[in-house]
Amino acid sequence: MLNLRSSSASFGGTTEFYSHNSNCCNSEMNFSVYIPPQAKTQPVPVLYFLSGLTCTDENFMAKAGAQRIAADLGIMLVAPDTSPRGNGIPDEPDQWDFGIGASFYVDALLEPWRSHYQMYTYITHELPQLIADSFPVLKSDKGEPIQSICGHSMGGHGALVCALRSPNQYRSVSSFAPIGSPSQCAWGEKAFSGYLGDDRNLWSNYDATELVRHTTHPNPILIDQGMKDRFLDTQLKPAFFEAACQASGQQLVLRRQLNYDHSYYFIASFIEDHLNHHHRFLG
Amino acid sequence: MLNLRSSSASFGGTTEFYSHNSNCCNSEMNFSVYIPPQAKTQPVPVLYFLSGLTCTDENFMAKAGAQRIAADLGIMLVAPDTSPRGNGIPDEPDQWDFGIGASFYVDALLEPWRSHYQMYTYITHELPQLIADSFPVLKSDKGEPIQSICGHSMGGHGALVCALRSPNQYRSVSSFAPIGSPSQCAWGEKAFSGYLGDDRNLWSNYDATELVRHTTHPNPILIDQGMKDRFLDTQLKPAFFEAACQASGQQLVLRRQLNYDHSYYFIASFIEDHLNHHHRFLG
Repeated sequence: MLNLRSSSASFGGTTEFYSHNSNCCNSEMNFSVYIPPQAKTQPVPVLYFLSGLTCTDENFMAKAGAQRIAADLGIMLVAPDTSPRGNGIPDEPDQWDFGIGASFYVDALLEPWRSHYQMYTYITHELPQLIADSFPVLKSDKGEPIQSICGHSMGGHGALVCALRSPNQYRSVSSFAPIGSPSQCAWGEKAFSGYLGDDRNLWSNYDATELVRHTTHPNPILIDQGMKDRFLDTQLKPAFFEAACQASGQQLVLRRQLNYDHSYYFIASFIEDHLNHHHRFLG
Repeated sequence: MLNLRSSSASFGGTTEFYSHNSNCCNSEMNFSVYIPPQAKTQPVPVLYFLSGLTCTDENFMAKAGAQRIAADLGIMLVAPDTSPRGNGIPDEPDQWDFGIGASFYVDALLEPWRSHYQMYTYITHELPQLIADSFPVLKSDKGEPIQSICGHSMGGHGALVCALRSPNQYRSVSSFAPIGSPSQCAWGEKAFSGYLGDDRNLWSNYDATELVRHTTHPNPILIDQGMKDRFLDTQLKPAFFEAACQASGQQLVLRRQLNYDHSYYFIASFIEDHLNHHHRFLG
């Protein structure tokens, strides 16, 4: 079922890249996984990382420097691709913020996207099941995988949505420079219109700021946001999510990092704090 | 003189990308630099990193994870591009192992390369002078920059050549998966024939295994070599350099790393050891 594309030894473990046929996306899908050295002898918890616009399953593994810390803490890392891609998959050529590389991690309602862009189901159900069946994943007494979720930008927002909608499925959630409320920025309005249609009531299922008004996660959310991020005021707007958390009582640690931008140099600088945060709750 | 292309905050310092007009290469050249936080208040020593075939000045900064350690130790990192490139620069299209991205860090003797590919002079003289003039570089009592050199593959070999030819100029040298003796592998024979001509006597000026027979570096050389490196037996052949070091009394720590390949996942896994090695000698 899993097609191993490459495997590289990495801090005593291995960084591996796979493709597989996804049922829900009706497509081949790519993901990467870091298997820490501890997994040779015991099951380990998993941290999912959802990447941002234009990324593939490679960026996080190549640039974030997370393997060193995951090897130390005994955490498996899984970085799915940001959309289906390949033969027959619809795309919007010349648009980097919609279509391939820009799924926004929703289950699309409109064709031509609906047939393949079932990314919310893929991220929260199909992929965790596949990972749990294929790798030595630590499970709860109920047989559920012990996992948390993190992400960057579009994926940082996606991680918030996954954790808020399924707080029992994710022990903890953190995010780098997430889109605060896709319903209230150009990136999100374009994507949600295209994937979900014009009924904004349907958008709220995939908007973290809307979700957190009604449902909270039991553990504190950690967010790092660079203050020289060129998307800060136009797209990310963390104050929306921050205010909604305050109103609903969601614990949030939002760190505004002076001088940092939107790049992986920012992520690499703080990934250790995020892995340590998740380690507290992954046990 | 320096054209700042980008600057990203990174572990309390900044990762910056520059272009400038090189006199010796008669061309625009690119390099990246990591300025550690200590440099805000005091001059710091410099570690040069020479990259491998096909790389630019970005790979090392984006993928090696070196900034975290450099920020801790107070070392500036400089990663030059692997060749001139741009308008009017000769290339060998469709050849990834010769021409652009494949300078082998030699001063070319043959046209069309000679007019631009003066990379040995660029790496050992023009660039260090520019760096020392432009950034807060720690200098010796004689006014010379305190610096060491490291590299990967083609660049790992280039680092050995620089340090062996100018042991007073580099406090220490280390290397990841270097070409052991370019005169004795297909990559090197192709490049040296093209840049230097058919007289193999001229090649020995740029062959680390030939150089170390006659000249040594006062400090131990650190080399890491992955044992699943797909170029190990055909191109890298570390035993040539190892034997020559033994014969001449050059101190060498050659670590054969089981399971590791030729990628940046290998470099990232051991870069901390290399920076600590250089830190011993950079003082």
